[in-house]
Amino acid sequence: MSKSFTLSIDAMGGDNAPRKIVEGIELALKRHSSVNFMLFGDQAKIKPLLAEFTRAAARSRVIHTEEFVTDDEKPGHALRSGRNSSMRLAINAVSDGEADGLISAGNTGAIMAMAKFVLKTLPGIDRPAIATSFPTRRGGSVMLDLGANITCNADNLVQFAVMGEVFARHMLGIAQPSVGILNVGAEEAKGSDAVKLAAAILTNTKLPIRFHGFIEGDDIAAGTVDVVVTDGFTGNIVLKATEGVARMFGGFLKEALTGSPAGRLGALIAKGAIDKFKMRVDPRRYNGAMFLGLNGICVKSHGGTDALGFATAIDATIKLISDNLNQGIREDVARLGLELQSRRAAEAV
Amino acid sequence: MSKSFTLSIDAMGGDNAPRKIVEGIELALKRHSSVNFMLFGDQAKIKPLLAEFTRAAARSRVIHTEEFVTDDEKPGHALRSGRNSSMRLAINAVSDGEADGLISAGNTGAIMAMAKFVLKTLPGIDRPAIATSFPTRRGGSVMLDLGANITCNADNLVQFAVMGEVFARHMLGIAQPSVGILNVGAEEAKGSDAVKLAAAILTNTKLPIRFHGFIEGDDIAAGTVDVVVTDGFTGNIVLKATEGVARMFGGFLKEALTGSPAGRLGALIAKGAIDKFKMRVDPRRYNGAMFLGLNGICVKSHGGTDALGFATAIDATIKLISDNLNQGIREDVARLGLELQSRRAAEAV
Repeated sequence: MSKSFTLSIDAMGGDNAPRKIVEGIELALKRHSSVNFMLFGDQAKIKPLLAEFTRAAARSRVIHTEEFVTDDEKPGHALRSGRNSSMRLAINAVSDGEADGLISAGNTGAIMAMAKFVLKTLPGIDRPAIATSFPTRRGGSVMLDLGANITCNADNLVQFAVMGEVFARHMLGIAQPSVGILNVGAEEAKGSDAVKLAAAILTNTKLPIRFHGFIEGDDIAAGTVDVVVTDGFTGNIVLKATEGVARMFGGFLKEALTGSPAGRLGALIAKGAIDKFKMRVDPRRYNGAMFLGLNGICVKSHGGTDALGFATAIDATIKLISDNLNQGIREDVARLGLELQSRRAAEAV
Repeated sequence: MSKSFTLSIDAMGGDNAPRKIVEGIELALKRHSSVNFMLFGDQAKIKPLLAEFTRAAARSRVIHTEEFVTDDEKPGHALRSGRNSSMRLAINAVSDGEADGLISAGNTGAIMAMAKFVLKTLPGIDRPAIATSFPTRRGGSVMLDLGANITCNADNLVQFAVMGEVFARHMLGIAQPSVGILNVGAEEAKGSDAVKLAAAILTNTKLPIRFHGFIEGDDIAAGTVDVVVTDGFTGNIVLKATEGVARMFGGFLKEALTGSPAGRLGALIAKGAIDKFKMRVDPRRYNGAMFLGLNGICVKSHGGTDALGFATAIDATIKLISDNLNQGIREDVARLGLELQSRRAAEAV
């Protein structure tokens, strides 16, 4: 049972919209029966689906619009000409206080541009960042930024660390998540000026952040830290590269096991074990990237996700709303801001 | 049968030196019976191994030194104080013309610093880059830079593309390898100034390079291009991150298959299929990173490799020497240099 939150849904975003979205709502309502949904999109497409999924129908209100943002649309163009798009109206609903948070499986750059314009950033945050959780050997970790900011200075990285720490506390349920900055080596002398300065600030901060220091690429899957901080260029490429390798592995394994009678028989006998393995690395269990640093809860679902994945994104959104994530970020950023101000004042004397 | 090349070996570099190195030479000599080896290192440790591996003993000469570079030594320190180290003497042998190429499994930064100082870069190459091949869904690709250069400008990336193309032609045996620049999106407007300018230069070059354009992280394992070009910060992190995910997958699969009687039985029956899968992603089959752009063939073996992996690095080194890789790079870089010069001259008019 969850409190009676209202989620604003861009029902036209993603490859399988609106079907998989309505199906995902149906699934999620089994766990969160008192949540309400505002579905923004084409009623001619949504209403027949609600006739099919009665649980979703009972908790959803359709707000009709025929406009939507396409996947290849430039963010600037979407911002200027998408004022009546399903994405924009879903964001507005959060800004207007009608909804407690929003989910879109649409064009990431467009969501970011619109959400930043409409919701604004939290005080003390220069740039929002995209964060997600992912499976590791130790369980799960979070990583940010995943592509909102191509280049980042030390202040950006420090703000990502603070936001990521609060995010991990809620998403992973860890009391004191450890934070690491992604680098080409664990030694202090390595890396760009931005990562070195950010590490120095995080080492000396009085914020209760458990700063591990630098980590390397293989520490991500090892789960060496709970929060992986990096710039959006590296984060985006690393996340997609690891997803690609995971798919390649899955594909190779399937080819091997289906390629011979012994492989097929063995796989049949070991089906339970193989299913357990698959479940452990199922990307749908980790669906839902959060735009951190915005004045509103804004979650991006993977564009190609199915109903199960969309339901996971709904779970995550409800959790972040009920945990009051943004209040935690506000408080920590305010403390960091005061700390940096006083340090700069001390240096200036 | 290979021609009678001489390889210079840092016999003290890597976690399992010198045992796995001598064992790797023994293995490689089964395929390349006429290659000679100069082994630089502690004769008290190497000679007993040669008594054990007679094939290696017959083709190896030991050049004794008690000094070696440690794994945590700073490159600058190694350069200044490691003049009699096994690594440095192995590099000198190539510079002196005694050996046709060298292999070290030691400290990457130290090899780079020493090799750059001793061998110098090829004409027209501002900075050497580290390149390796890796498995993809389509077979194999190469990627560079893997950590030699933390920040790269457009000229560096273009030179990497040219070197990587020649490297892929030889290592992968592809007549016209396709080249892509790693970015956060395939659209021209995305990414840093360096990648955008490098893409513009490669789009307009008259060099016979099959330039694909930008690729994203998941294109790496998909094998979308034969040559993945990126800066050393991103390349190092991505390579290690994907290795980490591969290990995590392998570990999860093993845990699942050994965790129940049905899993164990199924795995036993499907052993042939699972071995085939393992072989396909075995990192030892891809061991050997090349320092491209140096005036000499210089290969880095993975520090933790075993004999099979070291033998793979020997195979790669012999191939690059016999193919005269550096002559190919010289020619293409000279053409690119002339082209850029004439373009800049035209722009200056």
